[in-house]
Amino acid sequence: MLSTMQDVPLSLATLLRYGSTAQSEAEVCTWTGTESRRLSYGDLGIQSAKLAHALRGLGVGEDDRVATFMWNNNEHMAAYAAIPAAGWVLHPLNIRLFPEQLVYIVAHADDRVVIVDGSLLPLFGPLLPQLPAVRHVIVANGDPAQLQAPAGVQVHGYDELVADQPETYDWPVLDERTAAAMCYTSGTTGNPKGVVYSHRSMWLHSMQVCAGNGMALSDRDKTLVIVPMFHAMAWGLPYSALMCGASLVMPDRFLQPEPLLQILAAERPTFAGAVPTIWNAVLGRLQTNPQDISHLRAVIVGGSTAPPSLMEAFEKLDAPILHAWGMTETSPLASVACPPAGTEGAEAWRYRLSQGRFPAAVEARAVGEDGQPVPNDGTSWGEIEVRGPWITGSYYDPAGNVTDPDKFHDGWLRTGDVGTITPNGYLTLVDRSKDVIKSGGEWISSVDLENEVIAHPDVAEAAVIGVPDPKWDERPLVAVVRREGSEVSADELRDYLADKVAKWQLPERWTFIAEVPKTSVGKFDKKRLRAQYAAGELDVVGEP
Amino acid sequence: MLSTMQDVPLSLATLLRYGSTAQSEAEVCTWTGTESRRLSYGDLGIQSAKLAHALRGLGVGEDDRVATFMWNNNEHMAAYAAIPAAGWVLHPLNIRLFPEQLVYIVAHADDRVVIVDGSLLPLFGPLLPQLPAVRHVIVANGDPAQLQAPAGVQVHGYDELVADQPETYDWPVLDERTAAAMCYTSGTTGNPKGVVYSHRSMWLHSMQVCAGNGMALSDRDKTLVIVPMFHAMAWGLPYSALMCGASLVMPDRFLQPEPLLQILAAERPTFAGAVPTIWNAVLGRLQTNPQDISHLRAVIVGGSTAPPSLMEAFEKLDAPILHAWGMTETSPLASVACPPAGTEGAEAWRYRLSQGRFPAAVEARAVGEDGQPVPNDGTSWGEIEVRGPWITGSYYDPAGNVTDPDKFHDGWLRTGDVGTITPNGYLTLVDRSKDVIKSGGEWISSVDLENEVIAHPDVAEAAVIGVPDPKWDERPLVAVVRREGSEVSADELRDYLADKVAKWQLPERWTFIAEVPKTSVGKFDKKRLRAQYAAGELDVVGEP
Repeated sequence: MLSTMQDVPLSLATLLRYGSTAQSEAEVCTWTGTESRRLSYGDLGIQSAKLAHALRGLGVGEDDRVATFMWNNNEHMAAYAAIPAAGWVLHPLNIRLFPEQLVYIVAHADDRVVIVDGSLLPLFGPLLPQLPAVRHVIVANGDPAQLQAPAGVQVHGYDELVADQPETYDWPVLDERTAAAMCYTSGTTGNPKGVVYSHRSMWLHSMQVCAGNGMALSDRDKTLVIVPMFHAMAWGLPYSALMCGASLVMPDRFLQPEPLLQILAAERPTFAGAVPTIWNAVLGRLQTNPQDISHLRAVIVGGSTAPPSLMEAFEKLDAPILHAWGMTETSPLASVACPPAGTEGAEAWRYRLSQGRFPAAVEARAVGEDGQPVPNDGTSWGEIEVRGPWITGSYYDPAGNVTDPDKFHDGWLRTGDVGTITPNGYLTLVDRSKDVIKSGGEWISSVDLENEVIAHPDVAEAAVIGVPDPKWDERPLVAVVRREGSEVSADELRDYLADKVAKWQLPERWTFIAEVPKTSVGKFDKKRLRAQYAAGELDVVGEP
Repeated sequence: MLSTMQDVPLSLATLLRYGSTAQSEAEVCTWTGTESRRLSYGDLGIQSAKLAHALRGLGVGEDDRVATFMWNNNEHMAAYAAIPAAGWVLHPLNIRLFPEQLVYIVAHADDRVVIVDGSLLPLFGPLLPQLPAVRHVIVANGDPAQLQAPAGVQVHGYDELVADQPETYDWPVLDERTAAAMCYTSGTTGNPKGVVYSHRSMWLHSMQVCAGNGMALSDRDKTLVIVPMFHAMAWGLPYSALMCGASLVMPDRFLQPEPLLQILAAERPTFAGAVPTIWNAVLGRLQTNPQDISHLRAVIVGGSTAPPSLMEAFEKLDAPILHAWGMTETSPLASVACPPAGTEGAEAWRYRLSQGRFPAAVEARAVGEDGQPVPNDGTSWGEIEVRGPWITGSYYDPAGNVTDPDKFHDGWLRTGDVGTITPNGYLTLVDRSKDVIKSGGEWISSVDLENEVIAHPDVAEAAVIGVPDPKWDERPLVAVVRREGSEVSADELRDYLADKVAKWQLPERWTFIAEVPKTSVGKFDKKRLRAQYAAGELDVVGEP
């Protein structure tokens, strides 16, 4: 028996139409260093129509990928809005990747047109000769004349290109499973892998960001989007904001603690999203330059686990951290750490420190080494596998081949994260499956150790990796970045840990480094740390 | 280019699985007259599995309709959960319809199994011989022996039937466009018309009920569902509650102001939904028996427009009314009257008195008499047409024929409501298209007049209809129900209106009646009022 419901596709064009009419007074505000350039959602509708006409004029057609190489700003938002609505595929490029990764990705995605921020031309220019498929480069917020283009590539100024275009566009009606956007994972192993989002997945994900049980984004919010728009679709915040009429504050290239605090003071957003390292840096500056940030009703932290000390510090500033978990493959919102109704104090805090609760649309299970789900009892460890309408089921392959079958398990995505799930659906990550330290048949979480070490007042950063041990197979090595001026020793840190972790977990090996190596998105690059250790580049205390 | 997202259908089985595990501590509480019978969502999962096994044992198979003839209670909730999840079609019957309408509907839907509340057997028993397709009747909360069944009909006790069934059920994976449930409109013209909801439409609608911009239902809520589960799927609250873990309070047959206030005192819900007439009656009792109801963060009013006086009265009780609009054909939530962010005082109040703002998923337009959309300027009147994934695109016809084509317009649903839409997407209803009074080429809203008259302290109820006029074609007739003890006259009421409506709108004709005739769902039955007038049954003052 069929339903009598209308068969209306979930479509980002509908979202753009809605945002630019019913929510036309909301705005995108891009920081210029001293103030914001403001674009109302009504004008965003016009900008998007003009951009779509301009791109069509360059020959962009069905399914074509249009890449961006941009900061978070008004023009990037217009690209987010226009490109999928017109039936093309938005491909935000991660400006922090290594050149060879970018060359690989642009060729793999077959990007023909790239929109580039003027301030990024010094980074993009040298790449361009290695991107033979690219036919058009559009320079936004800068001077196109500053780009030396190889033969066969046309360079356009964004403003000139869109200036005389019509202010409305007849957005096509699309099947909701049509590709809308793609992001490549920045995994530290192998080539980057492409995830292709659909109109359906982005729409459903946006509804989740607006859900009362989670982030509860609404038109009462003004959202500072520090997480880059090339990183897991800026956690879906741009489309969610269009859906509910929340305003957006974009930091452009001003991502250091000082300008971020200026933006907070000037725009007083209610909501902000970034990885822990950014918040850690903001916190550092706040300690010497205090500023009221209590206008933030929630500070979304994802990308890496937030250390409890960071969460406690923001709690004292009355800007509570809301912990979320996900990855490029999960659109990315998979869980949000709102405590269950009725919990208070230490109990609520325990839930808030977890990776959060899965919503109804994201089914999750922890799978043991035997490939069977372990119980959702809050203590059994397993690799987290997820399933749902905004979870990827494969990786993009231009030839349509199935790649990386080991990343999937009976239709579920294997996340590579090891964790526990409580009976009431809260996830706590223990570690990345490749970072778990296997010591004498027992498992040690590198993350737990890092959290304990970083809570020491003299420690700025700490990363733990497993290193070979003749007796126990593997043992932890702690790489510590001391706070400026501190001379804390390995023995002192070991004593400090003594009553905080089980005795058999207490690390023998310590090394003091200037900085933890990071990936392009600011996560600890433990692969590099392991390589440094293997090459004997680290000065290790306590090696037996 | 296809997306790489998993093709996971939106399914009410997933919702049931989620609600009964991650949200297993939420509960359905059914009032017994003195206290609540409590069923945790965990146990609801077990009850639903048992019911599904029992129904399958009776031969219920794919697509079969299972009807309910029940109050809002735990057993009705188990039917809501189990029947669609098992791949069958839930059909809640409106117990307040006239017998001939029920006989028509049960035959039209081809219901083979009916679950009936024991307390409704006196109503259902006499109908049964007229329902030849029905093979099984399951009596819940009562004695099956009290039902005299015709030959060929088996009668079962609910408890006995489910008692020994397995506690888990292997819910099938279904196409999300599969029929999940059906409701018939209780329109006052023609035969009732069937609307068939899909798993997809119910899921998306549930996400909207949970959206921060609207009702924002969450696990922090306990929802008193006064709106019957046979009326537009109880406004989607049962499924939304499963999605977010809100608890449900069910009043069963205790729908009078006194027991409703007992339920409010005992359960202290945060949220409650009912039509204005119920809230009006509750308010009447509160005036003589004061009680704190400020635990209600929102009182949802839909089904009919809430008079401003009612909204003001609840505001004073610190239980703010949240005005919503929709109909059986719209699942039913189409708009919710949260004021735009940043509005305050009189401006916010004006938005709250409107029918509310459309969400992104519900596209709306007002269409003039020429079939063309009028501008969304907040003043131009037109018939409201809506489109979206939880809006019906046709009415159910067993033979698969297209019926009632005049109710649809280029794929949009014609709602039969006349109203205005503001540039920022707020709907204000002016009238039902058939109730607008066409006086000398100008239109008068019967609803506006009713709202002005009912604000008079001596008026309990007022209904306005258009009656033929030799000079102006049509003029308003006001039918007034005086408050007990009042002797207010037509002249006094006319004087009272004089500075409140335009002079040419001021009604000449008045009649005083004991009660406004109501439809089965408690709306003013103006068709009957018109018939009474035409038959000369009303004693009219002021007829020229």
